[in-house]
Amino acid sequence: MCQLLALSCAEPTDVSFSLTGFAARGGLTDHHVDGWGVAFYEDRACRVFVDEKPAYQSPVAEFLRSYPIKSRNVVAHIRKATQGGARVENCHPFMRALRGQQWVFAHNGDLQPLGESEQGPYAPVGTTDSEAAFCFIMNRLYAHFATHADTDVDDVDAVFHVIEQATRTLNPYGIFNFVLSNGTAQFAYCSTRLSYVIRHWPFSSARLVDGDLTVDFAERGTPADRTAVIATTPLTDEVWTTCKPGDLLMFRSGALVQRAHVPVPAEVLATSKYAPSELSAVPA
Amino acid sequence: MCQLLALSCAEPTDVSFSLTGFAARGGLTDHHVDGWGVAFYEDRACRVFVDEKPAYQSPVAEFLRSYPIKSRNVVAHIRKATQGGARVENCHPFMRALRGQQWVFAHNGDLQPLGESEQGPYAPVGTTDSEAAFCFIMNRLYAHFATHADTDVDDVDAVFHVIEQATRTLNPYGIFNFVLSNGTAQFAYCSTRLSYVIRHWPFSSARLVDGDLTVDFAERGTPADRTAVIATTPLTDEVWTTCKPGDLLMFRSGALVQRAHVPVPAEVLATSKYAPSELSAVPA
Repeated sequence: MCQLLALSCAEPTDVSFSLTGFAARGGLTDHHVDGWGVAFYEDRACRVFVDEKPAYQSPVAEFLRSYPIKSRNVVAHIRKATQGGARVENCHPFMRALRGQQWVFAHNGDLQPLGESEQGPYAPVGTTDSEAAFCFIMNRLYAHFATHADTDVDDVDAVFHVIEQATRTLNPYGIFNFVLSNGTAQFAYCSTRLSYVIRHWPFSSARLVDGDLTVDFAERGTPADRTAVIATTPLTDEVWTTCKPGDLLMFRSGALVQRAHVPVPAEVLATSKYAPSELSAVPA
Repeated sequence: MCQLLALSCAEPTDVSFSLTGFAARGGLTDHHVDGWGVAFYEDRACRVFVDEKPAYQSPVAEFLRSYPIKSRNVVAHIRKATQGGARVENCHPFMRALRGQQWVFAHNGDLQPLGESEQGPYAPVGTTDSEAAFCFIMNRLYAHFATHADTDVDDVDAVFHVIEQATRTLNPYGIFNFVLSNGTAQFAYCSTRLSYVIRHWPFSSARLVDGDLTVDFAERGTPADRTAVIATTPLTDEVWTTCKPGDLLMFRSGALVQRAHVPVPAEVLATSKYAPSELSAVPA
């Protein structure tokens, strides 16, 4: 299984703290060794850094640790390949442009082939189930906004609704934990495992689960700061909220603003290597 | 004016030599200080690195100098803003996906507003004339391959023909030197200034125009190596070919394989700050 990480922040935030612990999982404290990637939004722009090397020995990851970027929306991924080789084009996050916005997507799970993809301009470059699922969602969004002239992608509730319907369609194909952002909102779906924590003022210290680094947020935060951190499993010793399978969440400016339930088919839960009681549980 | 650089190589090539001289132009030996970017193809994947800082003081450029990527197709750009602020979303090269390929584009020149863009899925994220022109070309390519089921983007002659027609349409809007790649071919258009050199075995040494570095290609090349370097102005003391205004060229595997003439309107040439005799001339 892969590892997902997403951040939604009220203010542009230096994200090196969370990435330090996250990158250690790419081969050092865990076995996600088939590449990694991170996408940072800087207002409308989105920069994606990917590498097919394990994150803990990747020169690009090392560079990013020394060159922190301030961002309000971040999507990151460490890959343990289930489908598609360890090649750059198969590294998440994937990015596509739609109606003047950059969209990024990262997936944790394993999907059966979708068959012929739906009509639309979005098609995968690589060979992963994940990029195929992302293109499916993007084609749904494209079709929706092409036929509903009264709304646009800035209407995040409309976007949420399209993603909810697409998730319902894709769910039977397998395990489908994902994070998706358009730079203004973070959408996150828990198929089997996902957790999040909201950090807000007054900040307390947090210890990284995967490293020796402790950062005291109280020293740095202001009342205007608020950050939601979404990850496959908790990254710190803070109190994380464990999502339930089927939770579809939307975060904006560090706050949870929308929620829906998209049931995970029983046969998909049965294929998970995790027992139902373990699903989304915080690891000991 | 901005600076363009593109490489088309028969074998995956470490491109740090050409980038060293090129990056020096971003603020050190020239005044292109509003950001830069480079796109490297690694087979189907394309990694884009952009920075709104001048290239000569950019940490991302410094990182790339110490972490050379081997690539067969490269597109790079140093920006002197004419339209759109010094923001990441306005940095070239721009990238879009079409039919399972990543496409990148960089522009040197200045275009009048295109007005309402043609119908199609591609729309700009930033505010430059250049990204608008790129989206225009991508919408033309999308429409062509959506309605010509007998051909696909692997047919580079069909792609060349669509680009030729789009260039004819865009030409009256202003100065439109560009390089465009889909990872298998390099398309280059000379509106006012563009040069190229083909390096092949046996290689001789080349001195960088913008730096003190000399690399002896004879030490490194093999008979299988061949590289076409396309740039706004010659980067080295090799013998470069000066393009004529109106030249549309296609390079593959380091060779010039296709050429067409798309006339530049006289009124556009008249707006150029270069006298006709200086157009595309190798600088003294």
